Amino acid sequence: MTKTNPGNFFEDFEVGQVIPHATPRTLGQGDAALYLALYGPRFAVQSSEVFATAIGYRAAPIDDLLTFHVVFGKTVPDISLNAVANLGYADCRFLKPVYQGDTLATTSEVIGLRETSNRESGIVYVRSTGSNQDGETVLDYVRWVLVAKRDAGAAVPDAIVPDLPDHVPVGQLASALPPLDIEAYDFTAAGSPYRFDDYEPGERIDHVDGVTIEEAEHQIATRLYQNTAKAHFNAHEQKDTRFGRRLIYGGHVISLARALSFNGLANAFHITAINGGRHVAPCFAGDTIYAWSEVLDAAPLQGRGDAGALRLRTVATKDRPCSDFPYKADEKTYEEGVLLDLDYWAILPR
Amino acid sequence: MTKTNPGNFFEDFEVGQVIPHATPRTLGQGDAALYLALYGPRFAVQSSEVFATAIGYRAAPIDDLLTFHVVFGKTVPDISLNAVANLGYADCRFLKPVYQGDTLATTSEVIGLRETSNRESGIVYVRSTGSNQDGETVLDYVRWVLVAKRDAGAAVPDAIVPDLPDHVPVGQLASALPPLDIEAYDFTAAGSPYRFDDYEPGERIDHVDGVTIEEAEHQIATRLYQNTAKAHFNAHEQKDTRFGRRLIYGGHVISLARALSFNGLANAFHITAINGGRHVAPCFAGDTIYAWSEVLDAAPLQGRGDAGALRLRTVATKDRPCSDFPYKADEKTYEEGVLLDLDYWAILPR
Amino acid sequence: MTKTNPGNFFEDFEVGQVIPHATPRTLGQGDAALYLALYGPRFAVQSSEVFATAIGYRAAPIDDLLTFHVVFGKTVPDISLNAVANLGYADCRFLKPVYQGDTLATTSEVIGLRETSNRESGIVYVRSTGSNQDGETVLDYVRWVLVAKRDAGAAVPDAIVPDLPDHVPVGQLASALPPLDIEAYDFTAAGSPYRFDDYEPGERIDHVDGVTIEEAEHQIATRLYQNTAKAHFNAHEQKDTRFGRRLIYGGHVISLARALSFNGLANAFHITAINGGRHVAPCFAGDTIYAWSEVLDAAPLQGRGDAGALRLRTVATKDRPCSDFPYKADEKTYEEGVLLDLDYWAILPR
Repeated sequence: MTKTNPGNFFEDFEVGQVIPHATPRTLGQGDAALYLALYGPRFAVQSSEVFATAIGYRAAPIDDLLTFHVVFGKTVPDISLNAVANLGYADCRFLKPVYQGDTLATTSEVIGLRETSNRESGIVYVRSTGSNQDGETVLDYVRWVLVAKRDAGAAVPDAIVPDLPDHVPVGQLASALPPLDIEAYDFTAAGSPYRFDDYEPGERIDHVDGVTIEEAEHQIATRLYQNTAKAHFNAHEQKDTRFGRRLIYGGHVISLARALSFNGLANAFHITAINGGRHVAPCFAGDTIYAWSEVLDAAPLQGRGDAGALRLRTVATKDRPCSDFPYKADEKTYEEGVLLDLDYWAILPR
Repeated sequence: MTKTNPGNFFEDFEVGQVIPHATPRTLGQGDAALYLALYGPRFAVQSSEVFATAIGYRAAPIDDLLTFHVVFGKTVPDISLNAVANLGYADCRFLKPVYQGDTLATTSEVIGLRETSNRESGIVYVRSTGSNQDGETVLDYVRWVLVAKRDAGAAVPDAIVPDLPDHVPVGQLASALPPLDIEAYDFTAAGSPYRFDDYEPGERIDHVDGVTIEEAEHQIATRLYQNTAKAHFNAHEQKDTRFGRRLIYGGHVISLARALSFNGLANAFHITAINGGRHVAPCFAGDTIYAWSEVLDAAPLQGRGDAGALRLRTVATKDRPCSDFPYKADEKTYEEGVLLDLDYWAILPR
Repeated sequence: MTKTNPGNFFEDFEVGQVIPHATPRTLGQGDAALYLALYGPRFAVQSSEVFATAIGYRAAPIDDLLTFHVVFGKTVPDISLNAVANLGYADCRFLKPVYQGDTLATTSEVIGLRETSNRESGIVYVRSTGSNQDGETVLDYVRWVLVAKRDAGAAVPDAIVPDLPDHVPVGQLASALPPLDIEAYDFTAAGSPYRFDDYEPGERIDHVDGVTIEEAEHQIATRLYQNTAKAHFNAHEQKDTRFGRRLIYGGHVISLARALSFNGLANAFHITAINGGRHVAPCFAGDTIYAWSEVLDAAPLQGRGDAGALRLRTVATKDRPCSDFPYKADEKTYEEGVLLDLDYWAILPR
């Protein structure tokens, strides 16, 4: 009997199953520095202890997406080692700030299962929660992924597809946001005068800059998250796939697009929720990532006047500047070059 | 109206203008570890808490050049986003030690402006100061840079060219150097028996070793400094320039040359001032950097017997070993392969 | 007279000579994060402060191999700058846990010398000890290396070859292991239910996964250890060698194989001793590393019931999956693709 992890196949999952994942992970200043060096975000709150504590944080918080990647990475050996494709995210909420010194662990619950028509695979829906050393949930999200069956002939239960929200409702936002002292929020230091009220639904922003990805960068990043998905690391095996080379972790593109979005959204310092995300096309080393965003909605936060939430669509492309806001060619297909279609809520001061 | 930063053009600057830059940045052990891993310096003071505190520092100080790059990086979006070329540095003084936990911010003042004869660009002189969370200036330097005009026909004020020192005078050195306990300075642990008094003006040292630069390395480093200059990151855009590829941040070459200089200058542990620096030729991934140094001057420090300052010229080359000390072919031109001509004061124990 | 380090040649060494090496080095969370990002280990003890302290450590210990590489790196400028080949390791014992904040230094003693028959080089045997800021030895090992003679004609002393143990005896293991609270050891969080008693001598485990090495990764890692061996960094010089390119530090392959071994040995969280190691073939960027392990022996620890030691052989290959456990073609030669043959003792909970 093998002691190595063969991963779970579709028929190994059942609805209601709870899977606590290995490995707990303490994040520190080294992780924050590496994250900064790998993507180049310039949001003042995560970059400066002085800025963060002045406005009301206990310390500079860990970048929301670093938390996301670390929580997500733990699920890979149990959920998606035999995945054919990562299909989507929904209902992702950041519930508590994460600080240097916090230890994160992840547990997933299977909330839906649906075999595909060819019976060779099935869609697994999991709700994953990341928690800290005090047992507080810091992140909660749903992900669904196409997983191979071990045996196409195996019988499987009837399909259960969870009812997922189109987007996180406004009333559930900003749980991780402390009360802000806006008098202390230095807009010059933050890099932009534009506040929540300066943005309007329908507004589109080209983030202008482009950044080219190197193999070493995405491997270092993906290992930082202890994400073990084989396709990102093994060129020897990947050369016999249809891509012929290593695939870049979709979250790497999300983080690059988010860092690029500073140029135009410098005060959107906190991602409070991700409504949905789609990796439209594969990304490889050598690709240059550009991004643009559209304001989908602007919501004041209930019971507080310090901040508001913008619902943003951030689109990332490869080898294609975004001055013409490339998106969909028609209802169903994205334009050439589009990599990522991310829908999220970000917090800005008022 | 766009919310993205278009950068300033030559006609946007005026003498006397003060520009506080985004983003404040807290440096920590992760930044120090990454800096060490990216360049490989072996100076004992920055490497060891035990060594640093034994000789009189409060803790192991942040590498002087990491401070320089972080302070410099912040100026890019406001000063040199539309730069044609970085022309020079002068009067750069390290005024306070920077420690892990310190938060750095940068402000620049425009101290000179001179349009070029073709009227398409102009030279902008700025004095930039890096300060810590207590408002103390830790670094002060002048930089001048050739910036494009938005409109070649625009009228500009009469030229003002600041009077800059050829080099930082000895009386202004060593502000950031605590009193050293030389009894506690372990020359064996530091890697060399040679003290200040063992070096003589005119002495030349080949630093022997060479190191090849990778794209991932300089991108990770340059992002660590939150330096957003486009030429370093965007291969897609750079392929249509005269270089056809990404340019490496000049400061990356300075840091590599400095790390190589340990071999021959192991006790020159602190850069107290940079008199001037010139990036002679562009540097690209794949280039192998070598370096050599010449002692230009040796100055005891006024009123203290613990240390002295060597004025050094460190020359970096690419794909050319330095056993024959390559420098200038004639008064005006550098020899083939020379990348960097850096003139600075370094502190050594006596 | 040069102030640069020419390195020692064979005739510069004498038996009994003690060489304290530069540069002391304080390790911190940044080093731990970088190590994790460069190799991707997932052992819970090193990854989580909560896990480590629950079972009896004062804090999450530094990865044993990071300690090894840092202690080893310091010896390079004095021992192996003029090395022709690194021949072997023996009697390597990890004696104290290393924690973030500890400062490591290394001293070596020459314990054997033997000229080779062609008289152009000789084997130097050194015992190197790494110590912390309190003067405690944290690591002790013997290494032998083939070093060039400055002058083939130079007379050298009679050969002295140290008597080295085939393997570290069981009675010398686990010095760095605190008493473990096994009740608090969370096997789910650790990623595997398999304890010491679940493994048997003769058992072989294919670690399944493969990881491709990039130039930037091994250079960043090797510099993190302040290891200055020229062959790893200088593509310009290496292109004229028989390999034509940079050689990867053998320790990089050890760390990759160790990280891969998590898949099958997740609870083998601590390397307590290395009995011997052989770098069978050179490794280059672009190689994909696979690994498998064999249990050579299983030893309960004297006087304690909390843990046991498995003697493991971990074999790493390049561009060759390990499902058929590739090893030796015959007594003397390894199979094609084998890179590393490492024999060590690892600790597992009981």
